[in-house]
Amino acid sequence: MSSAVPAVSPQIILETLTAYHRSAALKSGIELDVFSAIGKQGATAAEIAKQTGAAERGIRILADTLTGFGFLTKSGERYGLTPESAVFLDKSSPAYMGSVSGFLNSEMLMRCSACLTESVRKGGTAVEDDSTTAEHPMWVDFAHAMAPMMMMPAEMIATILGAERGAKWRVLDVAAGHGMFGLAIARKNPNTEITALDWPAVLAVAEQNAKRFGVSDRYRTLRGSAFETDFGKDFDVVLFTNFLHHFDEKTCEQLNRKAHAALKPGGKLAILEFVPNEDRVSPPFVASFALTMLQNTPAGDAYTFSQLEKMCKNAGFTRVERHDLPPSPGTLVLATK
Amino acid sequence: MSSAVPAVSPQIILETLTAYHRSAALKSGIELDVFSAIGKQGATAAEIAKQTGAAERGIRILADTLTGFGFLTKSGERYGLTPESAVFLDKSSPAYMGSVSGFLNSEMLMRCSACLTESVRKGGTAVEDDSTTAEHPMWVDFAHAMAPMMMMPAEMIATILGAERGAKWRVLDVAAGHGMFGLAIARKNPNTEITALDWPAVLAVAEQNAKRFGVSDRYRTLRGSAFETDFGKDFDVVLFTNFLHHFDEKTCEQLNRKAHAALKPGGKLAILEFVPNEDRVSPPFVASFALTMLQNTPAGDAYTFSQLEKMCKNAGFTRVERHDLPPSPGTLVLATK
Repeated sequence: MSSAVPAVSPQIILETLTAYHRSAALKSGIELDVFSAIGKQGATAAEIAKQTGAAERGIRILADTLTGFGFLTKSGERYGLTPESAVFLDKSSPAYMGSVSGFLNSEMLMRCSACLTESVRKGGTAVEDDSTTAEHPMWVDFAHAMAPMMMMPAEMIATILGAERGAKWRVLDVAAGHGMFGLAIARKNPNTEITALDWPAVLAVAEQNAKRFGVSDRYRTLRGSAFETDFGKDFDVVLFTNFLHHFDEKTCEQLNRKAHAALKPGGKLAILEFVPNEDRVSPPFVASFALTMLQNTPAGDAYTFSQLEKMCKNAGFTRVERHDLPPSPGTLVLATK
Repeated sequence: MSSAVPAVSPQIILETLTAYHRSAALKSGIELDVFSAIGKQGATAAEIAKQTGAAERGIRILADTLTGFGFLTKSGERYGLTPESAVFLDKSSPAYMGSVSGFLNSEMLMRCSACLTESVRKGGTAVEDDSTTAEHPMWVDFAHAMAPMMMMPAEMIATILGAERGAKWRVLDVAAGHGMFGLAIARKNPNTEITALDWPAVLAVAEQNAKRFGVSDRYRTLRGSAFETDFGKDFDVVLFTNFLHHFDEKTCEQLNRKAHAALKPGGKLAILEFVPNEDRVSPPFVASFALTMLQNTPAGDAYTFSQLEKMCKNAGFTRVERHDLPPSPGTLVLATK
């Protein structure tokens, strides 16, 4: 060991190795519903503790940590909500999305993360019952947890597709999950009929959402695997949202070919993906989604636009466009037959 | 659900809930020794894969992620080390500290993190075999893993204490762990005799380090608990490094009183702590250490300077000074008898 004091700081290393505390703190804040307890009026640790049934000392430390990490404000002994917490984490807000923690921090995903080293060694998930396993129960949790977060990108995609023009459309929503992407189109365009394809247990969630939005009469389902189930034909739009990243390039191309066959001429395949830049390292959050797929799937990845474009062109699509959807980290890739 | 698109972005929520991926990525990079494989000369994913025995695909995705997160550079297909990775994560560097992941990301600490919500409810650790349990084996892992990271602050503390002046000193290192703090003084001052107190299994690590530094002949040990073991008396310096945060204020004050009794008049108690500002929320990394103590101990905390000063003054110390130790996140609180 040297006694020289290096000119660089180990801070980034310490902060990164302990970054899991940030996830845990926010997850606990959501689980204990600290944000709703604080609400618009603000609250002290004692008041939050009373409201949430947690120990005041525990709440004081959690709330201080959440303040440091940018989710609360603190003035004297009183905590308040930041703009993001007020919009997305207070249950009285219509855009509440605290439920996403139930998926992003689920036992299943945490277990995959704990096996990352082994997944890197192997070049694919080291978990036996990975997320691409037929009828994996995690997709039901996913459908419940992630729906609120998908509202924004779903509405943006519906708008980009021109749903408001009201054309008579048949839309196929593949691996529909919560169904939000198809439902956003159905809500904007009363002449749209949706066909949602997914495992039966997951479709039950999509059907609940269809009912909630009052579009059940225009909501059909296809129960089964996207690989084994016949898509049908003459669709105006096929949706592959947060779907292709679970598979390797060859499989993605096959799926795109199947979508192509199911579309009318001029029909559109709408692909929602985490699309890193061609350098594959930026933006960091988007690029790091490849790591999530490495540990959760046998061969999934985060594909660049040029890879997705090639998968579409090889499948017979003529025009392939890119639409970013800020503030969502997702990108819409729109391929025309 | 509303269809309004909020003006704020959920990005900070998504990045925080998934921040555990950052910890896992860096941990895997360290475990697979990706940084040493890249070294000064840089390497492609194929070269790193060959060197580490991992799949090229796994390495490519891990290295891209580590680039995005600031630990590697990428030029074409070639990865290089950032200044921090070169100094702290390449095993050929004398300041290598990759071992810290073995403690910071240990099964024990990850388990405490997974129980955070329950710990907040309870106001103290929800884990049965918490880190303050007598002779907890995690402290042996700690002693091995954290020694390299403590080199820098240990040398800074020895310098602040004036070890280089070479006075004939007796130093008591309480909960010595790896022993680095006492050893830094022994190395700078050949007239120092160290007495290290800790559990027997942990002291074995400190004794190994003493041997490595060639100071075994000036290294005594006291085997046992800091609470039950007699400290002895007439010490010039007592070290409480990363120790008090495990306990409540009353217990800290008792320990300080015991240190006071063990010191000569004019002797110094050197306390190393994570000391947040009086607002208890800044700096965020330091303040969030309270959360680590909440989940790992029954009553530990991160204390502000005014709390530590009070604990020292109540224990009979006259002067209490604060010394920050950049770039280390720790603060030295120096109390004079």
